[in-house]
Amino acid sequence: MLTFVGLGLYDERSITLEGRDAIRDADRVFAEFYTSKLAGATVDELEEFHGIDIGVRDREGVEQEPDPILDAANPGDAVFLTAGDTMISTTHVDLRLRAAERGIETRVIHGTTAEAAAASLTGLQNYRFGKATTLPFPYAHGASSSVPTSVVDTIEDNRERGLHTLVYLDIKVGTGPSGPDPTHEEYMTGDYAAELLAEELDTVGVVVARAGSPEPIIAADSLESLAARDFGDPLHLLVIPGDLHMLERDALSELAGAPEDVLPDPV
Amino acid sequence: MLTFVGLGLYDERSITLEGRDAIRDADRVFAEFYTSKLAGATVDELEEFHGIDIGVRDREGVEQEPDPILDAANPGDAVFLTAGDTMISTTHVDLRLRAAERGIETRVIHGTTAEAAAASLTGLQNYRFGKATTLPFPYAHGASSSVPTSVVDTIEDNRERGLHTLVYLDIKVGTGPSGPDPTHEEYMTGDYAAELLAEELDTVGVVVARAGSPEPIIAADSLESLAARDFGDPLHLLVIPGDLHMLERDALSELAGAPEDVLPDPV
Repeated sequence: MLTFVGLGLYDERSITLEGRDAIRDADRVFAEFYTSKLAGATVDELEEFHGIDIGVRDREGVEQEPDPILDAANPGDAVFLTAGDTMISTTHVDLRLRAAERGIETRVIHGTTAEAAAASLTGLQNYRFGKATTLPFPYAHGASSSVPTSVVDTIEDNRERGLHTLVYLDIKVGTGPSGPDPTHEEYMTGDYAAELLAEELDTVGVVVARAGSPEPIIAADSLESLAARDFGDPLHLLVIPGDLHMLERDALSELAGAPEDVLPDPV
Repeated sequence: MLTFVGLGLYDERSITLEGRDAIRDADRVFAEFYTSKLAGATVDELEEFHGIDIGVRDREGVEQEPDPILDAANPGDAVFLTAGDTMISTTHVDLRLRAAERGIETRVIHGTTAEAAAASLTGLQNYRFGKATTLPFPYAHGASSSVPTSVVDTIEDNRERGLHTLVYLDIKVGTGPSGPDPTHEEYMTGDYAAELLAEELDTVGVVVARAGSPEPIIAADSLESLAARDFGDPLHLLVIPGDLHMLERDALSELAGAPEDVLPDPV
């Protein structure tokens, strides 16, 4: 049996009770932290909290050499951990399909996600979000401008329809500006993302810093103003609102400190 | 202090460790189950599991008469529970803003959500979902057709862009076909939703039944075929896929049992 368990958003207590029980019942526990990480807990802290050893795998160890994980799941019970929800990243669907091909039973125990937090913490309604997008570091894409056209297109396409856009911010673990580098760890910040996007868009943004932590920061302002601020430790997200309903506008003003003059009139 | 805690998707163990601790530390615990419910645990089971009393509020008791909740949060620590993530419903943003107006500190402890499960369990990539929509019971909307135009428009608008659509299925608690009724409880099933949508769309759907439970059912087929099946107890979701990448197609075939001939070629 291979059980995919989401660790949730922030630290060792962001996991569900069911996920914790699956970890404790497992014969072997694996994890990856290249698609996301728990900003509030180290691997050592997780191991101590759950009383287990965790085999951390890099991208190659999941995508190219998954056999040790699959072997541990048959016979035996293996758990595979990621921050957030394990199946949100394509990679892990691939791992699940490989397990299924080998006749290994699989299960998913969900974790709390950035996409839910983006709606939940900002007060923007979840069913008024369009397609999400990811803003890569400029060195990580080949385009001549700082922001890939596809990112701007997604935001503008959503905005034309009145919809909000969740912008995931790039994470580089194990690969840096000059290629593979096991020590490299880089998390794009909300202020930097706002600076990049301000070159292309003149609008309001909402930075969500440390979603799932006891004291997340939610800040709504013009992209230009957000670019001049510092939101502290990772992980950060950026939301570009579309049309605002009255209650959404109130939430950005009251819960995210948006200056009155930057918010559009409610629709 | 008013802490909004998401119970997650299915039963008493779907909550995070942090959420559980907040419940145990609270002076008063309130909950509502009209926007969603835990299909795998009753209120009595929740009370026993956490060793607490839960004051269940109906819609009026949250939207029109929130004072008992706000009073318990100042002075004192009150927790407000919902299935999934508490802040996904607009209603509760309103409650949070009312607390803020009174100077009551608020916090959100996230729960696992149907929107994450819809991507996670189907293998459809979360950043390829467009705007979500809700399919209401025909008696609950004024349109002459079985399906409101807005629902069909959302799905078609997403599909034109190659995007998937998460269709939330209607929940009626406390209000039935003939108006307010405290005993009424009705959850739209995936087969019924497929039957309604098959009148308007000739395409593939994916039913997700009991997301977050130990044995969820994931079934991909033509809407017409899904309409003829029975997916058991609630809660159910329906996803209408857009374009499929190779891995997404493999997932619908392998994990959701889609017949080869109903799936479009991968893009």
